[in-house]
Amino acid sequence: MTRYQHLATLLAGRIEQGLYRHGEKLPSVRSLSQEHGVSISTVQQAYQVLENLQLITPQPRSGYFVAPSKAKPPVPAMSRPVQRPVDVTQWDEVLTLLEGREDKTLATFGGGAPDITQPTLKPLWREMQRVVQHQIQDVLRYDTLPGRRELREQIARLMLDGGAAITADEIVIASGCHPALSLALLAVCQPGDIIAVESPSYYGTMQLLRGLDIKAIEIPTDPETGISIEALELALEQWPIKGVILVPNCNNPLGFIMPEARKKAVLALAQRHDIVIFEDDIYGELAAVYPRPCTIKSLDIDGRVLLCSSFTKTVAPGLRVGWIAPGRYLDRVLHKKYAAIGTNTPGPQLAMAAFIRDGHYHRHVRRMRQIYQQHLETYTCWVRQYFPCGICVTRPQGGYLLWIELPETVDMVCVSRMLCRLKIQIAPGSLFSASGKYRNCLRLNCALPLTDANREVIKQLGEAIHTALEE
Amino acid sequence: MTRYQHLATLLAGRIEQGLYRHGEKLPSVRSLSQEHGVSISTVQQAYQVLENLQLITPQPRSGYFVAPSKAKPPVPAMSRPVQRPVDVTQWDEVLTLLEGREDKTLATFGGGAPDITQPTLKPLWREMQRVVQHQIQDVLRYDTLPGRRELREQIARLMLDGGAAITADEIVIASGCHPALSLALLAVCQPGDIIAVESPSYYGTMQLLRGLDIKAIEIPTDPETGISIEALELALEQWPIKGVILVPNCNNPLGFIMPEARKKAVLALAQRHDIVIFEDDIYGELAAVYPRPCTIKSLDIDGRVLLCSSFTKTVAPGLRVGWIAPGRYLDRVLHKKYAAIGTNTPGPQLAMAAFIRDGHYHRHVRRMRQIYQQHLETYTCWVRQYFPCGICVTRPQGGYLLWIELPETVDMVCVSRMLCRLKIQIAPGSLFSASGKYRNCLRLNCALPLTDANREVIKQLGEAIHTALEE
Repeated sequence: MTRYQHLATLLAGRIEQGLYRHGEKLPSVRSLSQEHGVSISTVQQAYQVLENLQLITPQPRSGYFVAPSKAKPPVPAMSRPVQRPVDVTQWDEVLTLLEGREDKTLATFGGGAPDITQPTLKPLWREMQRVVQHQIQDVLRYDTLPGRRELREQIARLMLDGGAAITADEIVIASGCHPALSLALLAVCQPGDIIAVESPSYYGTMQLLRGLDIKAIEIPTDPETGISIEALELALEQWPIKGVILVPNCNNPLGFIMPEARKKAVLALAQRHDIVIFEDDIYGELAAVYPRPCTIKSLDIDGRVLLCSSFTKTVAPGLRVGWIAPGRYLDRVLHKKYAAIGTNTPGPQLAMAAFIRDGHYHRHVRRMRQIYQQHLETYTCWVRQYFPCGICVTRPQGGYLLWIELPETVDMVCVSRMLCRLKIQIAPGSLFSASGKYRNCLRLNCALPLTDANREVIKQLGEAIHTALEE
Repeated sequence: MTRYQHLATLLAGRIEQGLYRHGEKLPSVRSLSQEHGVSISTVQQAYQVLENLQLITPQPRSGYFVAPSKAKPPVPAMSRPVQRPVDVTQWDEVLTLLEGREDKTLATFGGGAPDITQPTLKPLWREMQRVVQHQIQDVLRYDTLPGRRELREQIARLMLDGGAAITADEIVIASGCHPALSLALLAVCQPGDIIAVESPSYYGTMQLLRGLDIKAIEIPTDPETGISIEALELALEQWPIKGVILVPNCNNPLGFIMPEARKKAVLALAQRHDIVIFEDDIYGELAAVYPRPCTIKSLDIDGRVLLCSSFTKTVAPGLRVGWIAPGRYLDRVLHKKYAAIGTNTPGPQLAMAAFIRDGHYHRHVRRMRQIYQQHLETYTCWVRQYFPCGICVTRPQGGYLLWIELPETVDMVCVSRMLCRLKIQIAPGSLFSASGKYRNCLRLNCALPLTDANREVIKQLGEAIHTALEE
């Protein structure tokens, strides 16, 4: 992120937080330049960005003022899903979304792919070259069952940032967070079991449950604080639930970070009812706050938390490098891994281990955190500008996903079919419910670059929704 | 393979086949040189190899004669496993074997790793470099669900060699043959189902059944012609069997190629009883005969054969590139893939696609076929030389695995524990039975180089077995 982008993000944040009120005069270019130790032209560029975002308006000879914009849309209310175990549906809809990956002309706001174009990734390319040149025998031979030790050691160090003191021996490499979660579920569950999930919940996880013939029970979830512990407790009293899948840090799709007290409360509840917590931390490193929020795993004392994560969102999806810290289920996870998958590709593991070891990973993630925050700010502005009134939008505390709730009459499944013709792909909310709820919602991937073309896409999206509202 | 090695292999084959009888004089160095268009010294080197193998003896001023060696050991008889569905056991034993991968001082005759040191693999390294340099965005992004199209197109062409006319759209990439088989089983079976397997049968496949809570019924199998169709039919009449897993080409561990008539017969039986055939073709390309033998898939008319394979044995295990041609189960396999694994690493797929497209794959496999045949010949000689009398040894028609049956009193599970201390790893036969049969057998990986050190290992192995016999 350049200096002016950084400054623009900072100022946008202050406006959003209400530090500068609507109509209020902003600091002069000169004073900002002195305050932040940047050039006059940097401040001017930053103000230009904010003006383009319609956050501020220039007044001749007076300077810049906070624009009398629409108020920030409210956050959606706590979800209210059907609270009984159901078989997951929606596979055909997910398949349609996946098929979009093959169409390079599509604006893929429906997927969850990160930005893989940043220069901070270049050391990774070099490492990938290096392992082929200097470790070709290691690249070509069978990996060990738990995965390359040098990588597991680096992951153990990363997990300390989330508060979990885990050794390399307690970590098993998997080819992504999704296969890690698959192993975790295989190790704990039988077909026919019931697993509790946040609602809305990532569609990939739901299809995983479907694939394993596990029933899902959707639990009301607050878009700012996470799963309702009260509702989960009620469900646990009523149904023989084996475990709960949580994305407590930078939730997909809602973007919240569960407050630590609630993480403790949900763990205590799991202990009381002797259930397992499947913790999906895939976006956890992309939290807006620094240091990053703790994992539930860091609070775990009896090995009932199976933490799953990967470098898919922080680095690149094509690596397929993830891991699981399975607590007391280590042996079972190893057997399930051998049985279902065998071993993983050593090459990307070796490259990632060096990328982390040499400090490039932390540099990259620091950069991506800032970029994604700016993206979320900007996309939120665009949505506010082009979407109809009466919508609710999440305020993600990290990651790069935005969840938008439209008036109940809008059917995003229909709208998304229409958008396909415009080469625009979004993820309709119904994918995020086992039973197809949230048809009036959508998830937007804000990792896509802040280009005029993408602004145009959001505009077209807004128009399509306007049209749907009027019908 | 150098010229003299090639010639030595050819001559060894003729001796084995009885074209030159024991005690008979071999052609003169000069005549062989003329016949094969090679130099005198090449023929002399070839004869030296055969002399070292004790296949021939020089007689001063008379030339070389076929050595009055022990007769080739007989092939094991048809197996006679317990013919009822059982839960697969032996996981701890398999885990011990797998842990050997971490110990680089071990002589790993127990594993199934191929030789990855040949120069014909160098073009693959170059392709791996090239994709990182020129296709980095493709390497880093999400793959499509079925896998990279350019690779699927190449695989479709390869499958023609086995007689199966399949399009790229009917192929799904998996991270190896093992995960491919896992997806195939997930697509067809439920926990508690019964699957028929050859006996002995590859331990990885058995653990896969265990991992999915599928029962195995072991079917008598002939070491030269494959599964007993009569016994399979009896089992099908008696039990509700969902399918049968077959390795019909270069079987693991027995090395046979099922005659085409028997392939047809087993398919007809599957049709009659409406069961599925899971065909594991992982060693199929390494058949000694050229052109390679047909797959059962090539005879399939109603999509009931799910063919699974990979480049693990033909190219390198570390690539983790395999595939499945799932016939009528395509949609279910795609869902199970998404649910269990998600997508695969694009990098190795792109490199492999180019490696095949440019003819390097065929060149490499041609070389490996010859090398492994020579290895099998030589290891068989060493076994004959160092092992006690009264053993049976398979005569593999491809691949690089040797199955040895010892007198019933020898317990290879005990012997293999003792061998561990000598840093020698073998695969005791009991791993290849769901219920731990074949304790008096072992599988030997003959992909390991023909070095003096490895000859010494076979000698030590023979001594350990001698000792066990005497106890």
